[in-house]
Amino acid sequence: MRILLDGMGGDNAPNLIVEGAVMARREVPEDVEIMLVGKEDLLREALKEAGGSEEEIRIIPASEVITNDEAPVRAVRRKKDSSIAVGMRMLRDGEADAFLSAGSTGAILAGSLLIVGRIRGIDRPTLATVYPVIGHQPSLLVDTGANAECRPGNLRDFGLMGSIYMEHVLNRDNPSVGLVNNGTEPGKGTELTKEAYKLLDESGLNFIGNVETRELQNAVCDVIVTDGFTGNAIIKLTEGLGLMMLRELKQMFTASGKTKLGALLMKDQLRGMKRQFDYKEYGGAPILGVKKAVLKMHGSSDATAVCQTIRKAVPYVEHDVCGIIEHEVEALTDKA
Amino acid sequence: MRILLDGMGGDNAPNLIVEGAVMARREVPEDVEIMLVGKEDLLREALKEAGGSEEEIRIIPASEVITNDEAPVRAVRRKKDSSIAVGMRMLRDGEADAFLSAGSTGAILAGSLLIVGRIRGIDRPTLATVYPVIGHQPSLLVDTGANAECRPGNLRDFGLMGSIYMEHVLNRDNPSVGLVNNGTEPGKGTELTKEAYKLLDESGLNFIGNVETRELQNAVCDVIVTDGFTGNAIIKLTEGLGLMMLRELKQMFTASGKTKLGALLMKDQLRGMKRQFDYKEYGGAPILGVKKAVLKMHGSSDATAVCQTIRKAVPYVEHDVCGIIEHEVEALTDKA
Repeated sequence: MRILLDGMGGDNAPNLIVEGAVMARREVPEDVEIMLVGKEDLLREALKEAGGSEEEIRIIPASEVITNDEAPVRAVRRKKDSSIAVGMRMLRDGEADAFLSAGSTGAILAGSLLIVGRIRGIDRPTLATVYPVIGHQPSLLVDTGANAECRPGNLRDFGLMGSIYMEHVLNRDNPSVGLVNNGTEPGKGTELTKEAYKLLDESGLNFIGNVETRELQNAVCDVIVTDGFTGNAIIKLTEGLGLMMLRELKQMFTASGKTKLGALLMKDQLRGMKRQFDYKEYGGAPILGVKKAVLKMHGSSDATAVCQTIRKAVPYVEHDVCGIIEHEVEALTDKA
Repeated sequence: MRILLDGMGGDNAPNLIVEGAVMARREVPEDVEIMLVGKEDLLREALKEAGGSEEEIRIIPASEVITNDEAPVRAVRRKKDSSIAVGMRMLRDGEADAFLSAGSTGAILAGSLLIVGRIRGIDRPTLATVYPVIGHQPSLLVDTGANAECRPGNLRDFGLMGSIYMEHVLNRDNPSVGLVNNGTEPGKGTELTKEAYKLLDESGLNFIGNVETRELQNAVCDVIVTDGFTGNAIIKLTEGLGLMMLRELKQMFTASGKTKLGALLMKDQLRGMKRQFDYKEYGGAPILGVKKAVLKMHGSSDATAVCQTIRKAVPYVEHDVCGIIEHEVEALTDKA
C-alpha cells in the first residue's frame, strides 16, 4: 500500500507535514509505503530536519503549489505540476493508493472530481468529518461543506457512504444514521429534508429518523446526515463554542488564587475534555464518493494530525472502502 | 399599557405562569396592567396560590386550550375560545398591547398571522431569539424556526426587524448585522445567501458581511441573520452543547475528593457560565413583522422566565417597535 502525502498544503507545510510523515513511518506497518509530493529541495531539507531519510520516505517532485486564494477548478487545471495535481494523477494511475492533503479544500475537491473521478452512481461526492461527542465515541458528520446545495438523493448517498466509512474505518457495527432536521417527527422540515427522509427510510440503512442538533451531543447516531451548508454551520459552531467555553474556563481558573488551586485539582479532567474538541486527534476528513481514497486534513494540521490521518488511511485502503461504496451503489441502483 | 399573558401555554401552565405574573406585578410600573387569559377557575385558583389577587391581575376567560400536537392553523381556526385565539383577538382589537405565550410555537405563529396580521411589506414574520455569547452581551438570532425556507428578501427583512428590536428593546446602539454563511468572502454560499448578501449590503443597515458560525461566540455582530432551518440548528446546537459541557464539568467535579474541592473553589464562576446558557434569563422571543407585540416564551418557562418576558414586553410596547418596523419598511419600499 502506498500513501502519498501533499508536502505543500496547509499552514505548517512543509515542516510539520514532513514531521508527521516521519512520525507515522515509525507507527504504521512496514509494507505501508509513505511518499511525499512537492518541491523537492524543500521536502528534502524538511525530511532531514525531521530525522527522516529518503530511503524510508520517497519524495515525488512537483514544482507548483496551489494556494487557498486561487479559484480551485482553474488552479487544478492550470497548475499541472502542483502537488495536488501530481498527487491526484498518481492516485488515478495506481501509483498511489491514498492521497492526503492539508491544502485548499476547494482544490482537493476539484482535483478529486476532475482527475480521480466520481464513483458511478454518486452524483455528489462529499466531505465527511468526525464529529466530537463529549464523553462518547465521535459521530461522522456528512456533508461538512463540499455541497452547500443538495438534492434529496445526495443526502441518501451521504448516509450510505458515511455508514460504509464508519463501519470499515472507524469499526462501528451496523452504524445508525440520523437526518438533521428542525423537529423529530417524519413530516417535519424543508422540501429537501422531507424527501430525504423518505429516501433514507427506504434505503436499507440503519436509519433512525430525524435528529435535532440539540441531541447531537447525546450520541444519538453514528452518522449525521445533512446538506453542506448546515453541516458547515454545525462543525464550525461546535468548534467555536467548544473552544470558547474552554477558554472561558481557563480565564475563570486564573481569576484568583482560590480558583487557580481549583484548576490545579482539575487539570487532568480539563485536558481530557479539551482533547475531545481537538481535530488533531481524529485525523483527516475523507472525500467520499470518488474512486480512490482522498483525505483532507485541517489547514492548521501539525505533525500529530498528519500522523493520525496516515494511520486512518491504512484501513481506508485495506478495506477497500471506495470499492465497497461502488458495489453498494450498484446494488441500490439495481434495486431501484 | 396592557400585557396579556396566556395562562394555559407551556409545560408549567397554569401555576408557574401565574406565579411569574404575580412576580412581575411587583416589578413593572403601576400603569402596566397585567392580564391572564385561560380557564377561569384554574387561573383563579393558581392566582390565589401564588399570592396574587384579581384586583391586581385581571382574568380573561377562555374555555379551550391548544396543545402542541395540534395542527396549528386548523387549531387556531377551530378553537375560537382558546387562550391563544382569544388573546390574539384582544390584541388585534386594541384590548391588549402585548400577548405572551409559552404555548405551541406553530399556533402562536398561526394566530399572529391569521388574527393579528402581518405588517404591510413584510412577507414573512420571524421568530427572533436572544443568542447567548459567553462573557459578552447576547446577540439576536433571526430567524430561529418560523421560516425553514426563505427567499433573499426575507433575510433582508430579518436584518431590518432584528436591528430595530435590538436597538429599542435591548438598547444596542447602531446594531451590527451579520449574515450566517459558509465563508466570509462576499461571493460565498448558496444562491440564497449570495443574493441576501447583496440586499443587506444595500439596505442601509450596519451590515458587517458574512459571518461563520465559528465566530458567533466572539460577539462579532448584534444581529445574526439566517434562514429558519439553519437558525433552528444553531440555537438548538448551542443549547445542547452548552448544557452538555456543563453537565460534563459537573461530572468531572464529582469524580473524586480532589476534584470536588476544585469545584467548591470554582462555584461562583461556574454558576455565572451556566446563567449565560439559561434561556430564563433572556425572556421570550418576539414574533417580528406582525402588527402587534407577540412574545413566544420557552415551553418549559418557569416563573422567572415569565417575569423576565413581561419586563421585556414593556419597552417593546413603549417604544412602539411594531410601528417603527412598519415605518421603516415603508421607507425601504419607497426607496426601491
